[in-house]
Amino acid sequence: MASEPLPPPPFGAAQPIEAAAEQLAAVLYNDQGLVPAIVQDDENGEVLMMAWMSAESLAISLAEGRTVFWSRSRQELWRKGDTSGDRQWIRSAWYDCDGDVLLFRVHQEGQGACHTGARSCFFRSFGPMPGPEPAVPPTQEESPR
Amino acid sequence: MASEPLPPPPFGAAQPIEAAAEQLAAVLYNDQGLVPAIVQDDENGEVLMMAWMSAESLAISLAEGRTVFWSRSRQELWRKGDTSGDRQWIRSAWYDCDGDVLLFRVHQEGQGACHTGARSCFFRSFGPMPGPEPAVPPTQEESPR
Repeated sequence: MASEPLPPPPFGAAQPIEAAAEQLAAVLYNDQGLVPAIVQDDENGEVLMMAWMSAESLAISLAEGRTVFWSRSRQELWRKGDTSGDRQWIRSAWYDCDGDVLLFRVHQEGQGACHTGARSCFFRSFGPMPGPEPAVPPTQEESPR
Repeated sequence: MASEPLPPPPFGAAQPIEAAAEQLAAVLYNDQGLVPAIVQDDENGEVLMMAWMSAESLAISLAEGRTVFWSRSRQELWRKGDTSGDRQWIRSAWYDCDGDVLLFRVHQEGQGACHTGARSCFFRSFGPMPGPEPAVPPTQEESPR
């Protein structure tokens, strides 16, 4: 059965990044040829996920303006969102002081980054789930009369 | 020579987290016994750094309410900020859908997270540095008269 074709990207979504050779040369890969890539929502700063990139998947990501990872479990290029539609359109791309971690600020298409359907892969906290700030101060006990 | 003692933590800084046994058991460590830990500024969402934690350093981090990593280069516990004063006070701690990445939202003490003195380790972008949004629209060319 043929799968449904993906809808075209949102207007203006793909913004390829032309990296300088010395920028790409600053990236350090581990002994499997991979570097961790953090993905952050460019609109609200939420950390969405972390995955791994090879030099090839980094080059494709920058050239196409969307995240492409290396799947360690499947040992193949993982064009994020090709199956789910949840593509990530790169707004800016960063490498850290040591060159061994990448950060992508993206426009997240679809329902979210996580394969569970959650928007972020970080939906479980240690300890009790931190609640939102209370909108109103808690009711004060009345003073003894 | 004795080093200067650290100043006491800011009032209310240390907020230990009591993690449930099943939460800690959900964390997957790599073949070196380590898991990547992303650190994000809880106040403005900026991604500050990524480092690695062992099970021991995670337990200490949660118990003391500040980040403690495993230094792969020095092969020892790295109590972030003990030398620099740039301690990170944990506001919430998260583990991802696969349990193989951690995320800490922190109050960053001192000048920043990076050993270079930068606030974030991600101060270099691929391609030209993205500028801030222009505060005013660019001056329009006058129409020909």
